[in-house]
Amino acid sequence: MDWINQPCPERKSIFKENAIERQTQLTKPPGSLGLLETSAIQMADLQQTNQPAIDNIAIAIFAADHGVADEGVSAFPQEVTAQMVMNFLQGGAAISVLAKQLKAKLEIIDAGILNPLPEQKGLIIQRAGAGTANSAKQAAMNLEQLKTALKTGRDAVKRALKNKASLFIGGEMGIANTTSATALYCALLGLEPEQITGAGTGLDHNGIQHKVNIIKQILKTHQASKSDKLDTSEWLRCAGGFEIAALTGAYIHAAQSGLPVLVDGFISSVAALCAVRINAEVNDYLIFSHVSGEQGHRKILKVLDKTALLDLNMRLGEGSGAAVAVGLLQSACSLHNQMATFAEAAVATKNI
Amino acid sequence: MDWINQPCPERKSIFKENAIERQTQLTKPPGSLGLLETSAIQMADLQQTNQPAIDNIAIAIFAADHGVADEGVSAFPQEVTAQMVMNFLQGGAAISVLAKQLKAKLEIIDAGILNPLPEQKGLIIQRAGAGTANSAKQAAMNLEQLKTALKTGRDAVKRALKNKASLFIGGEMGIANTTSATALYCALLGLEPEQITGAGTGLDHNGIQHKVNIIKQILKTHQASKSDKLDTSEWLRCAGGFEIAALTGAYIHAAQSGLPVLVDGFISSVAALCAVRINAEVNDYLIFSHVSGEQGHRKILKVLDKTALLDLNMRLGEGSGAAVAVGLLQSACSLHNQMATFAEAAVATKNI
Repeated sequence: MDWINQPCPERKSIFKENAIERQTQLTKPPGSLGLLETSAIQMADLQQTNQPAIDNIAIAIFAADHGVADEGVSAFPQEVTAQMVMNFLQGGAAISVLAKQLKAKLEIIDAGILNPLPEQKGLIIQRAGAGTANSAKQAAMNLEQLKTALKTGRDAVKRALKNKASLFIGGEMGIANTTSATALYCALLGLEPEQITGAGTGLDHNGIQHKVNIIKQILKTHQASKSDKLDTSEWLRCAGGFEIAALTGAYIHAAQSGLPVLVDGFISSVAALCAVRINAEVNDYLIFSHVSGEQGHRKILKVLDKTALLDLNMRLGEGSGAAVAVGLLQSACSLHNQMATFAEAAVATKNI
Repeated sequence: MDWINQPCPERKSIFKENAIERQTQLTKPPGSLGLLETSAIQMADLQQTNQPAIDNIAIAIFAADHGVADEGVSAFPQEVTAQMVMNFLQGGAAISVLAKQLKAKLEIIDAGILNPLPEQKGLIIQRAGAGTANSAKQAAMNLEQLKTALKTGRDAVKRALKNKASLFIGGEMGIANTTSATALYCALLGLEPEQITGAGTGLDHNGIQHKVNIIKQILKTHQASKSDKLDTSEWLRCAGGFEIAALTGAYIHAAQSGLPVLVDGFISSVAALCAVRINAEVNDYLIFSHVSGEQGHRKILKVLDKTALLDLNMRLGEGSGAAVAVGLLQSACSLHNQMATFAEAAVATKNI
């Protein structure tokens, strides 16, 4: 598991400097493209080029089940995880439609759903187990399972790199995974479950209250299990999910490989948090795509000091928010590369 | 000018109802696509179809000069209006790049810049005058000029309809037009210039203070000119610009023709306000693309009770914010049309 601590590549500062300079020369008032300017500069810096581009998008969706679903924390039954995997494969899910629109390479990975599906085209099987154990009662996974799940994410990024991806999007599917994610946020950021527990796929008020209680139980179970404070990896093992650990591994390896990551919503952001806590250099490579409609995400982005590109009240997961935001990054790159400068267009500059 | 008061088409409610119903059947938690769901429903309603689509985008950029530029209210010299028109035509401006990315039909219209440009491919010449008069001292235009400018907008929409456009975007270019727009907002919404006057293309603090004073002078000049309160058309004539009036005419005629409009930022929104004040039925057809970084736009959208799709701190005009938002509407339509239902995908629905 040592690989997760390996450094990210050193970047030359020249590409960022060139990009900043170029943005001042393009035929527009300085700063008037807002976040599209900063995104273009960031992409130039991360891709180490004067011509940033997002022409080859890798999307990997990690699916896994959660033992804590036994506690009745989700509005949907657990079998939906596997059913949605089938839906991804058959092209009927939101991310299937969006990936097609983006001409992205979409991979569906069984990182540990309850009952394995038959081998089939488009499905990658790399299971860390038949769902996690119930984290309200015991550690969600053992150390071997954590290692497997992290490697599942790394392997997805390796395939993306082999395909010459210029942007990586990770997505997730796992009934009860907002419970797992919320417990991790609370443990890692010192928040109270009441502050950030939301409706997930559609709990009512009583359902959310029950979920808060289960999250408290998760925290208590593992805080009490050792005399020392748990580190990030230990929390990921005790309260996480295979798909969350896979996303964590994917984000770390993408950053280590110099591949920019577009982070999706509530669940993906907790994997991003874990990745950065494990390896601080990963932070630079993470672009946050949207503020999720899941209660708590806005607060979490604020705590993490992150600005997201979109705020559409989406809360679907599957990488869908990130997929919707790709167009903004593509516009940012096109504008950066293709707009004329004041000199080229013979347009007068500011007179004040 | 009677045409501006003609009604918009009556819409059958069945397409909106079908769209709402379909969104509950798609394989996702209800509401989890947020604004993309409401946008798809709105497009189905406006396009009167069960399969909303944005596959043919018409972008019309209206350029005109403002006499009030003489008062030193802009950070850029007035000749930039014509220079930017040349830049639009040569493909170097932001909207040129974005239109190409969208495979949109882009038209540049001289609605009344100071010095006419030679006839050339891609330029439509329909001038209401050689720039407006200085509205700080007299009416910006006479009634004939207002009629011409409104018709310029209507004609652009007629061409878009002939090309079977499924979405209309209007954009503008005109040095000093944030001054004109801000005066109109103040006059029509009863706001004070201090509340909403911004930096435009890049004024400093003193420049903004000077601009506030000029806007006060504009308001005073025309409020004092008649004993009665001016109506919207009169304000548009006295304090507006040819490009703002053209946008107003374009929005009205698009709505009258059942063509949805994606409104750009600060300047375009004032044309949208004028259009709705003149003809209330236009309101349904206007989708607001983004909250501009121009000081005041957020407040104005709040006053108008409008939600915008994007908030990227853009403040360039040219229809650029609307062009960047098109992808979101396209994603919304693709998801609506192509996602599988729970029944089709054999996915279980909520169990609570």
